[in-house]
Amino acid sequence: MSSSRPDPTHVPLAVVNRLTLYLRELQHLISDGEQTTSSSQLGRRLGFTDAQVRKDLAHFGHFGQPGIGYRCDDLVQAIRKILGTDREWRVALVGVGNLGRALLGYRGFSRQGFRLIAAFDIDQEKTGTKIEGVEIHAMSRLNEILAQERIELGLVAVPPADAQGVTDQLVAAGIGGIVNFAPVTLNVPEGISKVGVDLARELEQITFAVANRLREQP
Amino acid sequence: MSSSRPDPTHVPLAVVNRLTLYLRELQHLISDGEQTTSSSQLGRRLGFTDAQVRKDLAHFGHFGQPGIGYRCDDLVQAIRKILGTDREWRVALVGVGNLGRALLGYRGFSRQGFRLIAAFDIDQEKTGTKIEGVEIHAMSRLNEILAQERIELGLVAVPPADAQGVTDQLVAAGIGGIVNFAPVTLNVPEGISKVGVDLARELEQITFAVANRLREQP
Repeated sequence: MSSSRPDPTHVPLAVVNRLTLYLRELQHLISDGEQTTSSSQLGRRLGFTDAQVRKDLAHFGHFGQPGIGYRCDDLVQAIRKILGTDREWRVALVGVGNLGRALLGYRGFSRQGFRLIAAFDIDQEKTGTKIEGVEIHAMSRLNEILAQERIELGLVAVPPADAQGVTDQLVAAGIGGIVNFAPVTLNVPEGISKVGVDLARELEQITFAVANRLREQP
Repeated sequence: MSSSRPDPTHVPLAVVNRLTLYLRELQHLISDGEQTTSSSQLGRRLGFTDAQVRKDLAHFGHFGQPGIGYRCDDLVQAIRKILGTDREWRVALVGVGNLGRALLGYRGFSRQGFRLIAAFDIDQEKTGTKIEGVEIHAMSRLNEILAQERIELGLVAVPPADAQGVTDQLVAAGIGGIVNFAPVTLNVPEGISKVGVDLARELEQITFAVANRLREQP
């Protein structure tokens, strides 16, 4: 049935964002020994309405059974298939500064199926060396290595002023998607996926609770 | 009117999370020269229903006017006030490894009102030095410096195995909220805010679009 096939041009990024939240919550539930869950339980744990959960999942087909809910394992597999993380992804890093080094050592990537294959930097002192087992290449070898290593995703961890230039080079080299860690908005052509990591948003989430607790102190 | 006062114990974290998205989107709209917006425009740009946007904002009072919508400036001010980011926040970093150094240099924090005041590390070679103008202290001085500098928020950027121990020390020193960059789940007492940064989630958002584009190739 063609209607059950996800069409990314009709699914808002926010729905995909929420799928990644559902996935983590399901992974937590499984760790806690739970076998089934419901849209209302998932919604409650994440602060969404159960209608929102059902609507999000309905983009991709029919999940769960009346009176039983969702089997956690099945829904994890289904969401990983939807997200495309039911296989390994080959990732390149551009920019081996402090953040880049941290990303090379970040254990959360491999756990979810992302494999850092190659890194690139303009600093000739770094090229030819390895960090966390990943070789650092000169930027001039970007096209060659991306093709040779069949790399599909790029992490941009360069200074803000260099981020657009690096992005243009990744796009020219045929990258499929970019995660941008520089605090600037990048322009990419239609058809290239990008997402920006805004670390200040995480802080804003906790100031809310802290601020209100402070205000309530006698 | 007491009902217009936000009560963090009744507002789900996901609502606060979405407020930070509304805030960035409004900041983008203002940069683009827009003066007003609507729940449907905000919802469409972020992939939420307009009902979700209205419901989220209704937690905090009445915003906008029928037929006009929201004034962007006013809503930015209101959301910053709700989030508590209408003032400066004093932040400490624990762990001056690669990620810690990257966080000390991250420009996105100060732009949103977060000021990194002090850093801590167990490595005696680092203590007493400054990075990006921020002094690195020994962990033994945590209580003293946090009190003296009136620091309210902590960034945990230590190896996963050390994250819970550092968190316990921050809690004992009276921290109000913690942002955890280690890929482990932390336990904190009731009343302490925490949020975990899961960098793999950002990658999962783009694999969706990339995977589906690949599947559709002839």
